[in-house]
Amino acid sequence: MNKPSNQSQFETPTVTTGPLPASRKQYSHPLADPSLSVPRRLIDLHPSANEEPVPVYDTSGPYSDPAIQIDVEKGLPRTRADWVLARGGVETYEGRATKPEDNGGATGNYLAREFPIRHKPMRGLQNQPVTQYEFARAGIITKEMIYVAERENIGRQEQLAGAEAQIAQGESFGADIPAFITPEFVRSEIAKGRAIIPCNINHAELEPQIIGRNFLVKINANIGNSAVASSVEEEVEKLVWATRWGADNVMDLSTGRNIHNTREWIIRNSPVPIGTVPIYQALEKVDGVAEDLTWEVYRDTLIEQCEQGVDYFTIHAGVRLAYIHLTAQRVTGIVSRGGSIMAKWCLAHHKESFLYTHFEEICDIMRMYDVSFSLGDGLRPGSIADANDAAQFAELETLGELTKIAHARGCQVMIEGPGHVPMHKIKVNMDKQLRECGEAPFYTLGPLTTDIAPGYDHITSGIGAAMIGWFGTAMLCYVTPKEHLGLPDRDDVKVGVITYKLAAHAADLAKGHPAAQIRDDALSRARFEFRWEDQFNLSLDPETARQYHDQTLPKEAHKVAHFCSMCGPKFCSMKITAEVRDYADGMTDNEKADLERQAAEAKKGMAEKSREFLYNGSQIYLADTPKPKG
Amino acid sequence: MNKPSNQSQFETPTVTTGPLPASRKQYSHPLADPSLSVPRRLIDLHPSANEEPVPVYDTSGPYSDPAIQIDVEKGLPRTRADWVLARGGVETYEGRATKPEDNGGATGNYLAREFPIRHKPMRGLQNQPVTQYEFARAGIITKEMIYVAERENIGRQEQLAGAEAQIAQGESFGADIPAFITPEFVRSEIAKGRAIIPCNINHAELEPQIIGRNFLVKINANIGNSAVASSVEEEVEKLVWATRWGADNVMDLSTGRNIHNTREWIIRNSPVPIGTVPIYQALEKVDGVAEDLTWEVYRDTLIEQCEQGVDYFTIHAGVRLAYIHLTAQRVTGIVSRGGSIMAKWCLAHHKESFLYTHFEEICDIMRMYDVSFSLGDGLRPGSIADANDAAQFAELETLGELTKIAHARGCQVMIEGPGHVPMHKIKVNMDKQLRECGEAPFYTLGPLTTDIAPGYDHITSGIGAAMIGWFGTAMLCYVTPKEHLGLPDRDDVKVGVITYKLAAHAADLAKGHPAAQIRDDALSRARFEFRWEDQFNLSLDPETARQYHDQTLPKEAHKVAHFCSMCGPKFCSMKITAEVRDYADGMTDNEKADLERQAAEAKKGMAEKSREFLYNGSQIYLADTPKPKG
Repeated sequence: MNKPSNQSQFETPTVTTGPLPASRKQYSHPLADPSLSVPRRLIDLHPSANEEPVPVYDTSGPYSDPAIQIDVEKGLPRTRADWVLARGGVETYEGRATKPEDNGGATGNYLAREFPIRHKPMRGLQNQPVTQYEFARAGIITKEMIYVAERENIGRQEQLAGAEAQIAQGESFGADIPAFITPEFVRSEIAKGRAIIPCNINHAELEPQIIGRNFLVKINANIGNSAVASSVEEEVEKLVWATRWGADNVMDLSTGRNIHNTREWIIRNSPVPIGTVPIYQALEKVDGVAEDLTWEVYRDTLIEQCEQGVDYFTIHAGVRLAYIHLTAQRVTGIVSRGGSIMAKWCLAHHKESFLYTHFEEICDIMRMYDVSFSLGDGLRPGSIADANDAAQFAELETLGELTKIAHARGCQVMIEGPGHVPMHKIKVNMDKQLRECGEAPFYTLGPLTTDIAPGYDHITSGIGAAMIGWFGTAMLCYVTPKEHLGLPDRDDVKVGVITYKLAAHAADLAKGHPAAQIRDDALSRARFEFRWEDQFNLSLDPETARQYHDQTLPKEAHKVAHFCSMCGPKFCSMKITAEVRDYADGMTDNEKADLERQAAEAKKGMAEKSREFLYNGSQIYLADTPKPKG
Repeated sequence: MNKPSNQSQFETPTVTTGPLPASRKQYSHPLADPSLSVPRRLIDLHPSANEEPVPVYDTSGPYSDPAIQIDVEKGLPRTRADWVLARGGVETYEGRATKPEDNGGATGNYLAREFPIRHKPMRGLQNQPVTQYEFARAGIITKEMIYVAERENIGRQEQLAGAEAQIAQGESFGADIPAFITPEFVRSEIAKGRAIIPCNINHAELEPQIIGRNFLVKINANIGNSAVASSVEEEVEKLVWATRWGADNVMDLSTGRNIHNTREWIIRNSPVPIGTVPIYQALEKVDGVAEDLTWEVYRDTLIEQCEQGVDYFTIHAGVRLAYIHLTAQRVTGIVSRGGSIMAKWCLAHHKESFLYTHFEEICDIMRMYDVSFSLGDGLRPGSIADANDAAQFAELETLGELTKIAHARGCQVMIEGPGHVPMHKIKVNMDKQLRECGEAPFYTLGPLTTDIAPGYDHITSGIGAAMIGWFGTAMLCYVTPKEHLGLPDRDDVKVGVITYKLAAHAADLAKGHPAAQIRDDALSRARFEFRWEDQFNLSLDPETARQYHDQTLPKEAHKVAHFCSMCGPKFCSMKITAEVRDYADGMTDNEKADLERQAAEAKKGMAEKSREFLYNGSQIYLADTPKPKG
C-alpha cells in the first residue's frame, strides 16, 4: 500500500452471515463415524408443492448457521485438530517466529493487525503416515475420508433406486462414478492418486472436501489483496462471500504487503481449503526482484505457510530452463505470474529452476503438514493463438514426472491446466493430462474459448470450464468479469462463483452423477407450477432471480400469479399444458394408436405431394447451373 | 396496455447512433457487382501497434455511420427495392388495408401512431422465380448472394495464404467451409437447401445476410412488447441497440395491442432480417382464445405480415394432434407459446393442426414474398428432464417432412431447435436435425445446459449455444439474464447479444473459419503490449471493458501504463516475457540442443529417484488394504 491504511484495516472484519432464503442447515452423522457432523443445506418448498425439502451441497460453513455464534476475532471452531491428534504421528511445536519480511516490512499504520490468537503448529513425524495419501496407501480410512464420502452423497440417498440408470445415461468419458460413495471408495481413489482431500493438519477449521474426477466437480475462487488495492477486511469478507455462493476452495493470491497477516485472518476463518502460490510471497521478501530469489527464502516461506495451515500450494516446478525459449514466438509469451518469475530467475542465473532441483525437499516439507501439491502450469497459453503449443505440453509432461515423485514421497497432488483454449482443442488437454499424470486430479483455469470479450471472460471461460469439467477436470478455477481488466470486487466474486457453479453443475449432469438432476427437476417443477418463491429459492442465486422478476412484476400478488411477464395473464403456455394432461389422462390406448395411424397416413400424403410438386415445378427453377445475374 | 399510452408513444423513437470507439464504417464493392456497398467496421489501433485496422462484421446498419442522416420517421434507405424490381417477376399492388384487429382493436390514446409513410407492397408472379431458393435452383446468382458472399469474406482477403491450414486445424464435424466464399458457393448452398438469406422482397431496408452451417454462425435477438410492458419507442430502440452490439437477426415477439404498428416502425428501421411468430398476432385477433383461431384469421395475418416485410416466420406446423399426448408426462409439458396455442386448438377441436393441413397454402403465400420458414419447435423441452424425448423428436421428424414440401414449393427453410438440453445430449440433436431435415440450417434457442440458475440463463444457455454452434447450428437465438423471470430491458438485451456473439465466435474459431482468429490475435497482441485502449476497442463491448478497468485504475495515465491492477507496478509477467524473447533471440541452435539434453538427463534422474523412494517407503504406507480408523 502506498498510503497508510485507514482505521478499518484494524477493525474486526464484518462478514455476511445468516441462512440463504428458505434454507436450513442440517448436519448428518455418517454411519462409519457418527461423531462427525457433515453439513448440507435444505431448501424448503411451499406447502402446495407437497415435496420434501431439496438437499444441496453446502460450502458456506458455520456462517450460514444461525445457531453458531460467529466471532471473526476468534476464528471458526477448530474441530479437526482433535482428529489429527487422535490418529497420532504428529507433534506440536513452537513454530517459526513471524519476521518483518513476512508482511513485506510493513510497520506502524501500514501493518495490518495480527490475528489475535496464535495456535502452535503441528507437523508430522518421520516414518509415520501423515498425509491422506499415506493413510490411503496404508489402507487406513480417515475421518476426512468418511466426511467427504458423506458429503458427496447428498441427494444420493434419495436417488439410489435410479442411480445406475442415471449414470448409464450420462457420458463420463471413462470416469468411474459410483452409485453411492463409500469411505472405502474415497480411500481407494486417493490411494490411486486420482483424488485429493486438501487438508493441512494445521487448518483445523476446515470442513473437508474431495477433488477428483469421480466426484462432484469443484470450483475455486481467487481472492487476495495486491499492491494497488484492497484490505484484510475486504479479503476475509470475500472469502466468506465466495463460499456463501458455492466456492469449494479459495486461493489467496495476495501480493504486496501484509501477506502473512492477511492470510492468517483468512485461514482461521475459512471452512474451505485455502490455496496459495508461495512464490508470490517469496518474491515480496526479495523486494520484487525475481533474480534475487533463493531456495532458502522460498523454503522458509513454505514452512511459514505450512505452519499457518495453507491446504495446497501452487508450485511451478515444471517451468524448466530448457522450455523457456519455446515461448519466445508466442503471441502472449508467459502469462502465469509464477511461471514468469521462475523464467526470469532461470534466465538471470542460466540455471535450472530451484523448484525443480529442490523438488524432493519441497515434497518432504509439504508431506509433514499434508499440504497438497497443485503443480502449476507456468507455461499455460495466454491466448487462443498459443493454445496447446510445445512449451505448454513440454511442461505438462514434466508435471507428470513430478507427480510420480510427489506420490512416492507421500504427497497429495493435483495438476493445473490452461488457460486460453478454443473449444476444439480442449479435449486433448484433458486426455493428455490424464495420461501424463496418472489420472491425478486436473484443476483448470477456464479455459477461455475466445479472446475477444474482456468484461465477459467469466462467460468465455465458463463455456470452456463446463466442457473440460465434463471431460474429466476435477476442479474449475473461476474467472470473474474483471479478468484481464482489474481486481474483482464483491459483486464480481459472486458472479464468478455462480458462473462456475453452474458450469460445474452442467458438467455433473453430463457426466451422469446420480443425484445431480434433483435440483434441476425440483426447480423445473416449481417453474411449471408457478411457484415463483420456490423457483427463486432453488436457484443458485435467489437474490438475483427475485430481483429480476420484480423489475417487471414487483407486486407480491404476482409471486403467486399463474402467469409471468413474458406472456401476460391472457395466454400462458404452461396453463395449456395442464389441459393437455387432463386430455391425455382421458385417452385410451386405442385412441392413441388411432391417432398415430392417422398421423402416419397424412405424413405419407404430404411426402407424395412434395415429390409431385417438385416434378411439376421443375420447368421453372430446378435447373442447377450457374448463370450470374445482377 | 391497460392504461392509455403516455405521449411518448406518439413521439419519434430516439435511437442510439454514432460509431463504436475507434471504429469507422467502410463499404466494399464486390467484383461481381461493384454497384453494391457492403458494410464492415474497421477498428483503428494505436499508432505504436504499427498494425492495420482490424476489419469486423458489422450488423449495425446505417446507425453507426455518421455520414448517414438517420430519420426514424422516414425509415432507412430502401436500396433493395431496386434490386427486386430490376430482376422482375414481381408486381406492386395496393395491398391489404389495415384492420382494427391488426392492432388489437386499440383506439384513441391506446393506439400507437402509424408509421408515417406507406409503401405499396410487392409480390411475386406465378411461374417466375421470386425466392432466393428459386433463383439458386435456377442457377441464378442474385445481388443478395453477391452481397452476403462479400460480407462473409471480411478478413479472409487478409488471411488467404493461411486459410487452408486454418480450416484444417479446426473441427467442423463434416461442414464444408471454403477458404473464400464466392457468390457461386452461396448460390449452390442455397440451392441445396443448406443456407438461407432471409429477405422478404418488401423489406427493402435490409442489408442481406446468410444463415447456414458453412458460413459464420449468426445470432438472433428477441424483442417485442407484451400485454404488460413496453412501448413502440422502446422496441425500435431495442432493435437498433441489439444490432449495434451484433445481433444478425431480430425477432419481434410482440403480443397484446399495437402489434401491427409496432412492427411497421421496426421493419422500416431495420437493417437486419426481422422474424415473427404470426400465430401470436392471430391469437390477439381472436381475443386470446386459442380454440377460436381459424385458418382464415391466420392466413390473413400471414398476408398482413408478408406485405409489411417480415423476413421469416416461425410456424409450428410440426405440433400434430398425434404428438400432443406424448408431452403429458413431461416435467414441464409444452413451453413453446406457439406450440401450446396449437396444442390447445387441436385438443379443443380434436382435429389435426390447421398449420399442418394448410401447409402447402402457407408455402405458396410465403413464396410470393420470399418469406423464409423457421419451422418452429413447438414441442421443445422446457427442462433438462424433458430433453430429447419422444415428443421432441417426433416433431423434428415432421419438420423434416415439411422442409421437403417447402423446398418443393420454392421456399427457403430453417429449423428451430431446443431449448433445455444437458451437454451430453446436445450433439444428437444436431446430428438428427441434419439427417431429418436434409442439412437445412438449424436455429436453436440456447440450449440451456442446466435449470438451476435463473438470472444467469444467458450463461447456462451460452454454454450450450457455443457447443451446438460448433457442432453445426447456423443461428443461435439469444437468451438474456431475464429469461424465465421477466422482460429484458436495454441492458439485458446487450448482455444477451454480447454473450451470444462470443458463443458464436467461439464456435467459428472451433470450426476453423479462416478469418475468425484475426480479432482474437489482434486483441491478444494489444493485451500483451499493454495497449489498453486497443484492448478495449477490439473487444465485443468496449464500454464495459473500459469501465471495468477504470474501476480499479481510473487515471488516464494508467491506460498507457505497462502494468495492470492484477499484479501492480512492481512485478509483471508480461514484462518478463519481453526479456525471454531477447534471450531466445540470442541463443544458437547448439545452445538450445544442449539445454534439451541437460533437461532430459535431469528428468531421467528424477524418474529413478521416484522409483527408489517408493521402494524404501513401502514399509510405511504402501500396503493397500483397507483398515478403517476413526
